[in-house]
Amino acid sequence: MQALKNYIAGAWTISNSSEGSEVRNPATDEQIAWCPSSTDTEVEAAISAARRSFPAWSATPVTKRAAVLFELRQRLADATPEIAKIMVEENGKGYSEALGEMGRALEYVEHASAIPELLKGSISENVSGGVDTQYVREALGVFAIVAPFNFPAMIPLYFSWAVACGNSVVVKPSELCPLTTVRIAELAEQCGFPTGVVNVILGGVPVVHQLTSHRDVAGISFVGSSSAAEAVYKSASQHGKRAQCQGGAKNHLVVTESAHLDKCLPNLVNSAFGQASQRCFAGSNILAVAECYEELRDRFVSAAGAIRLGEDDEGMTMGPVISRESLERAHAEIEHAITEGAKVLLDGRGARVERNPGGYWLGPTILEAEPGMRVFDNELFGPVRCLKSIRNTDEAIEIIDRSSFGHSAVIYTEMGGVAKEFARRVNVGQVGINVGTPAPIAFYPVGGRKASFFGTLRGRANDAVDFYTDKKVVVSTWHAR
Amino acid sequence: MQALKNYIAGAWTISNSSEGSEVRNPATDEQIAWCPSSTDTEVEAAISAARRSFPAWSATPVTKRAAVLFELRQRLADATPEIAKIMVEENGKGYSEALGEMGRALEYVEHASAIPELLKGSISENVSGGVDTQYVREALGVFAIVAPFNFPAMIPLYFSWAVACGNSVVVKPSELCPLTTVRIAELAEQCGFPTGVVNVILGGVPVVHQLTSHRDVAGISFVGSSSAAEAVYKSASQHGKRAQCQGGAKNHLVVTESAHLDKCLPNLVNSAFGQASQRCFAGSNILAVAECYEELRDRFVSAAGAIRLGEDDEGMTMGPVISRESLERAHAEIEHAITEGAKVLLDGRGARVERNPGGYWLGPTILEAEPGMRVFDNELFGPVRCLKSIRNTDEAIEIIDRSSFGHSAVIYTEMGGVAKEFARRVNVGQVGINVGTPAPIAFYPVGGRKASFFGTLRGRANDAVDFYTDKKVVVSTWHAR
Amino acid sequence: MQALKNYIAGAWTISNSSEGSEVRNPATDEQIAWCPSSTDTEVEAAISAARRSFPAWSATPVTKRAAVLFELRQRLADATPEIAKIMVEENGKGYSEALGEMGRALEYVEHASAIPELLKGSISENVSGGVDTQYVREALGVFAIVAPFNFPAMIPLYFSWAVACGNSVVVKPSELCPLTTVRIAELAEQCGFPTGVVNVILGGVPVVHQLTSHRDVAGISFVGSSSAAEAVYKSASQHGKRAQCQGGAKNHLVVTESAHLDKCLPNLVNSAFGQASQRCFAGSNILAVAECYEELRDRFVSAAGAIRLGEDDEGMTMGPVISRESLERAHAEIEHAITEGAKVLLDGRGARVERNPGGYWLGPTILEAEPGMRVFDNELFGPVRCLKSIRNTDEAIEIIDRSSFGHSAVIYTEMGGVAKEFARRVNVGQVGINVGTPAPIAFYPVGGRKASFFGTLRGRANDAVDFYTDKKVVVSTWHAR
Amino acid sequence: MQALKNYIAGAWTISNSSEGSEVRNPATDEQIAWCPSSTDTEVEAAISAARRSFPAWSATPVTKRAAVLFELRQRLADATPEIAKIMVEENGKGYSEALGEMGRALEYVEHASAIPELLKGSISENVSGGVDTQYVREALGVFAIVAPFNFPAMIPLYFSWAVACGNSVVVKPSELCPLTTVRIAELAEQCGFPTGVVNVILGGVPVVHQLTSHRDVAGISFVGSSSAAEAVYKSASQHGKRAQCQGGAKNHLVVTESAHLDKCLPNLVNSAFGQASQRCFAGSNILAVAECYEELRDRFVSAAGAIRLGEDDEGMTMGPVISRESLERAHAEIEHAITEGAKVLLDGRGARVERNPGGYWLGPTILEAEPGMRVFDNELFGPVRCLKSIRNTDEAIEIIDRSSFGHSAVIYTEMGGVAKEFARRVNVGQVGINVGTPAPIAFYPVGGRKASFFGTLRGRANDAVDFYTDKKVVVSTWHAR
Repeated sequence: MQALKNYIAGAWTISNSSEGSEVRNPATDEQIAWCPSSTDTEVEAAISAARRSFPAWSATPVTKRAAVLFELRQRLADATPEIAKIMVEENGKGYSEALGEMGRALEYVEHASAIPELLKGSISENVSGGVDTQYVREALGVFAIVAPFNFPAMIPLYFSWAVACGNSVVVKPSELCPLTTVRIAELAEQCGFPTGVVNVILGGVPVVHQLTSHRDVAGISFVGSSSAAEAVYKSASQHGKRAQCQGGAKNHLVVTESAHLDKCLPNLVNSAFGQASQRCFAGSNILAVAECYEELRDRFVSAAGAIRLGEDDEGMTMGPVISRESLERAHAEIEHAITEGAKVLLDGRGARVERNPGGYWLGPTILEAEPGMRVFDNELFGPVRCLKSIRNTDEAIEIIDRSSFGHSAVIYTEMGGVAKEFARRVNVGQVGINVGTPAPIAFYPVGGRKASFFGTLRGRANDAVDFYTDKKVVVSTWHAR
Repeated sequence: MQALKNYIAGAWTISNSSEGSEVRNPATDEQIAWCPSSTDTEVEAAISAARRSFPAWSATPVTKRAAVLFELRQRLADATPEIAKIMVEENGKGYSEALGEMGRALEYVEHASAIPELLKGSISENVSGGVDTQYVREALGVFAIVAPFNFPAMIPLYFSWAVACGNSVVVKPSELCPLTTVRIAELAEQCGFPTGVVNVILGGVPVVHQLTSHRDVAGISFVGSSSAAEAVYKSASQHGKRAQCQGGAKNHLVVTESAHLDKCLPNLVNSAFGQASQRCFAGSNILAVAECYEELRDRFVSAAGAIRLGEDDEGMTMGPVISRESLERAHAEIEHAITEGAKVLLDGRGARVERNPGGYWLGPTILEAEPGMRVFDNELFGPVRCLKSIRNTDEAIEIIDRSSFGHSAVIYTEMGGVAKEFARRVNVGQVGINVGTPAPIAFYPVGGRKASFFGTLRGRANDAVDFYTDKKVVVSTWHAR
Repeated sequence: MQALKNYIAGAWTISNSSEGSEVRNPATDEQIAWCPSSTDTEVEAAISAARRSFPAWSATPVTKRAAVLFELRQRLADATPEIAKIMVEENGKGYSEALGEMGRALEYVEHASAIPELLKGSISENVSGGVDTQYVREALGVFAIVAPFNFPAMIPLYFSWAVACGNSVVVKPSELCPLTTVRIAELAEQCGFPTGVVNVILGGVPVVHQLTSHRDVAGISFVGSSSAAEAVYKSASQHGKRAQCQGGAKNHLVVTESAHLDKCLPNLVNSAFGQASQRCFAGSNILAVAECYEELRDRFVSAAGAIRLGEDDEGMTMGPVISRESLERAHAEIEHAITEGAKVLLDGRGARVERNPGGYWLGPTILEAEPGMRVFDNELFGPVRCLKSIRNTDEAIEIIDRSSFGHSAVIYTEMGGVAKEFARRVNVGQVGINVGTPAPIAFYPVGGRKASFFGTLRGRANDAVDFYTDKKVVVSTWHAR
Repeated sequence: MQALKNYIAGAWTISNSSEGSEVRNPATDEQIAWCPSSTDTEVEAAISAARRSFPAWSATPVTKRAAVLFELRQRLADATPEIAKIMVEENGKGYSEALGEMGRALEYVEHASAIPELLKGSISENVSGGVDTQYVREALGVFAIVAPFNFPAMIPLYFSWAVACGNSVVVKPSELCPLTTVRIAELAEQCGFPTGVVNVILGGVPVVHQLTSHRDVAGISFVGSSSAAEAVYKSASQHGKRAQCQGGAKNHLVVTESAHLDKCLPNLVNSAFGQASQRCFAGSNILAVAECYEELRDRFVSAAGAIRLGEDDEGMTMGPVISRESLERAHAEIEHAITEGAKVLLDGRGARVERNPGGYWLGPTILEAEPGMRVFDNELFGPVRCLKSIRNTDEAIEIIDRSSFGHSAVIYTEMGGVAKEFARRVNVGQVGINVGTPAPIAFYPVGGRKASFFGTLRGRANDAVDFYTDKKVVVSTWHAR
């Protein structure tokens, strides 16, 4: 099995490391690549390449940087089916899900390509006798982008905003799903980025540590678990870097009596089980008011039960979880939930896919559970969802308040006032109203609260431009006229 | 000597602490007040009062919050002479300097009173089939404002933006100059802030520690020395808080051959010695190109030598330094500089003010010095400035690059291209072009780089609004039409 | 009866004109002042004074202009009760209505006082090799503000944005209600505006003609009837001026079955009869779906019937119409409506106020009417409202589409989707959702469509800043570095 | 010679008109196409097609509209050489000039493709008790784009912003250079615009009249001569439409003693004679201060004399003027100037191009002339430029002030204060500092003053978004929670 290569200073180079990890197709358990744990020297080389490319790239006219991004956007658009297939293979998501991700990812690049607009500074003449004041936004240097396995195209493409602003980047994809990033970098290579502006370094936690503590790294955009996000944020802060670290989630979907169940149900099922529930916007706990609880429960269980598993989406609706460890963890959590008193409404543990018996399959699993149970309170990256009957939305808001996460929350209602009140009161970063997966479009920022986000400026959009630049103020006057 | 009171939950209360420090008039060495080191319980009470006031205040219509700020602005405007006199007494700055600070401080409140404009969120309809996306800015809770002694009115009034956004605040003024903040709080009390929205807690480092680590504090705005700023930033980050921490500075003023010396010289002298050199925007090291070095040196020394000392500005141009410790430190630095080879061009150590022999007087002191000497490289809060001849602006930029600070830098030139190039290349937060003290007007943000600033979002203006709020995204659709 | 004076070039001067009109208290028919029709020479003098003051005022630092507006805001706030009483006397509105208008008017000045923020231009460095591009906003010169009788404080204060931007103004109040503007100008005089920046010229249509065609007037903000607005807009356009002309309205309030009648009814009654129905945001035609029509009709007629008339609001809820002509026109319209088949549900024609028998009293009048009837289709400035039963909101939207006006439209509903759909589809400038009088707060622009607005940029807020300024682009590079 | 076709409702159709005009290659005088004068019925059909396509297109999600623009951008980028050749043939500009125009034109589409960002509305919660206010930007309907001959690709592509906002368009190219627009429309056809969103109608003044007065046209973007611009603006205003009409120019280039002549001269020559002086940003009158007048004059005449003529730019530097009429007009103006006393420094009237003797050739012509002479005061679209010695920049500013045009003005200086003062004082829409052709990059608006622009909102960039949309304000509250 050939090892994947790092992309450093414009060259694809094999790591000298003997350490590394297998990349496996989660639907088949077959190894598809070897992801090396890059050595300190290699990480250093990537950072160094980025640093060296920075002065010229940041001094490149903004319209030229934009033109490179337009080119990248076009090449990604043209390669969409190919990249989607890579994602299916290394991540296990369905092909249509992969296409959906690519559509979203293109919008990241599209927003970043508006950089001449986004980078505009501000000027005020004659703020006091003959004195003008202005600021422009300056790029900062080298940024590290550390991505998780679940969106192998979208998150690495956070680098679009970083480079659009004039920074150079070192991208570290998940060691579970590095192939998509490698392919994206191959395409980027053809778009006109100067050598060293975009680098890809493979590896795991030690690479992250090195990136987070290296004095030539100006900042880091991280997406991963809450504990990792917190650790990265604290380390980066101690080392004088900017950091925006997106952590985990436990999102609540609240179903009220005025919800239009026929229309909301498919949306809710998708939120709960789309991407095999491995996304931070996934609905985890469904809270339904007593008036509609039973109907909702029965229809939800029935709809979830109809989901078929498979390795691509020829008729499939859900793929495997990412790894055997993940599968085993999910099994253990179900067991533990039962011991805590949760009631199994739908049990996906026996799920099999005949054609691929070795895949990490887990069928949709639904538990009636309560706050205080681990399965209700903790993040679980896999198709195990909780159901609970509640008295009213006040109870829902209390439950959400007590959660250690603050990523998103959703209400299903047709009442304007109910939606408004819910949106105002829940302490989360994103609110969905009849939208189970309230992932904002690329030109809006994404973040969270409590354990779901560490940092000040959110990811993506205009917040990203603020994050990847520093304002420089100039105060001026002239005497000889 | 009566102890100053804390302002907690709308009440002025005497601290139970026996610890504390004397507040002395630096011009006379007379004690004018006693500043207690508030106890843990009192700090807790202040935070608690702020926390309790938060829900109602953040839910108050933004136009009503603005109206309170308009009221505050008016009362501060009316009380300007009175507050200026307090500043003269506790800080030692000249009366006209104090009036100048108040003018600036008023503009802080003015910008914050534009909060209905500044707080506008964003909305996009139909971003995909029938789905709308929006964000609004939400206040975060309790913010701590920790202020230094040198601008006793301006920095505490950072709280204007915090409360305008809907947060509540605990303000900790410098224990050296707490009276101004106390007076401002008395005025704020009359403006319509609900109980607990604005609190003042007196004390020193232990109070800061408690504020920085308390779980009910959402964030902290700090201005002080670089080492304190860094410590506060790291502590706040470890405790999951937002922080913006402004540190020290060592600002370079670069004089080029095209400078209009007649007009630049007074500006340069003011930058160097205004406020007894105790401000982060003060020019510290004057670098003049060889072509004009001698003329500049002679005129600068002559102008500085003409500065008279005194406790108010009836004909005075410079006040004392803030404390006896500060005075002694400055003396020691001058001594040390001489041992390192610096040449004394003007020696202020013998300065006396007959009427007030006990004041902490130090006359303008000018040294010819070089990088590598401590007096050239380190911040020195007092009227000791360095002069150096340079070959060209490239050398100036190199010197600035090697400085551990990145607050501001100034060039005196009439050449557009020289100014532009300098502004583009220096790695600092603020650049002055023929403006020796490039403090941006209140509606522009202020920050720095390297050891001069720890954080992402700058202080004041729109950055402050971003800092004091979090964006909440709502994604919505409706079915029943 | 003493004649009111013009305010020209900082002096209060009596008009030489023998022409003019009586200002009468609509509640008593007593003459309270004489409003001269200023001569051509006087109008010329006002424009000339404004033109002369322009260079210095537009070159005044923006923070100083803002300070004048803060002062104006404070003086207006302090004089609120006094100005409200003037409005009661000359306009007939209730005292609490007058206080409400002043609250709104203050917010105009508040938003304009944010001018340092609002006037910020834009800068982009290095848009192509070494070339920078920026724009700043420049004031244009003299603006005319022509105000109607119904909001004697608010509309003249449109001048706040004009002068904040650096323009000078000639304000022409309604000849029916000029006293409020005169008083506002007296207060403005004390705030620090240089001579000639604010001028008040009294008179009627000929003055407007002169302002609209004078070569030294850069633009005009007009509020009045649709026919006058159109004429002013066309004349101004022919003479190369900017114009924003707000015309009349015929606003529809749509009541749906999900409306919360208990809460909406007072709101609806206020929209219909507040300010004696003399405002462009007044609800004119109430359209209720059949399911709730009868209940709504009965309760609306009953609530309207309970409104008492009176000259101040000690227990009063509606004042007189503005003039005898207006009263007679309303009577004639009611007569004509009856001949067209409208059914009188409530007849206010017999209304009397014992204490003031000579006032222009007309009680709330409600007709069941249909599109095609003049009373349903045309604007009627007085308390004569139409009711109609409709099948559904589609029919309402069709009726609104066919109206020649496009000012505002309101829906009463608790269904989020119904509100959203209505807001999206109605072709008007402002939409109310459970808000009968959807007058946007001062920091949002106000405008209309079809015959309700002539122009491109709306009134107030950021649109006003765009309207009162022109962007100047500077493209620059430098060679000698 | 085959007639060009209209593009109406997605179909390419031959006009029924027998009227029309020849399209000739200005370099050869050969006819290359026939441009029909479309009939009233055809114009009606184009408007009608646009109107019908509007509801669906304006309701298309903004990200989908953006995707169509990204596609258009890519197809235009790919077709750049081909389109450039068409421009060379019909317009006579050099191939590299045509490529330059295409580069600019691409940036128009790029900025418009940022429409999801640009179209963001504004939202404020709780502006008063429980009331929210927001606005969104709505498309208006059908816009007409009327383009001149000199930039056959750029100006028609103004439609990018119009359609990005959700409007449909009828584009009328110049009858002298319609082929480029036809080709652009062919490419647009492949990009996914629904039928009728983009239409092209051929013809001359009568078509413009019909567009300007048609009730289904919401607004018009026009670029042409000042007299035509004024007429179109007035007609559009009378017919209740929005209009932005860019007119002619007479731009002054001011050379000061500090100018870096070696670097400025090529820039100045290009400004004066680039595009055969047929562009609104062309430098017309060169004003040099006496200190450098003679040197500037001699070097300018010498450099201009070295320009060679030719029909493509294999070694060529200037093409022909657009038409025989234009050539004859230029000859007549030169004659007239001589009679008025202008002194001919360089006479281009005898210019010949051997290979293409029939082309409309006029060599660079330079006159010493004075204000008051027609050649100095009036726009002249062809390579006839004036030179004048001035005392100082004050005199230059006076000359610019007295001009009836206000498009742009340029200063060559290395002094920051001189540039700043000039930029501040000249009453024009664009200022160049050492940039002879201060055409702002596409993401900045372009406009002018006096006879150079009629309208309020400028062309392109964010102003275009304001122009092509109307804000709709929604004020809302809810009762049932």
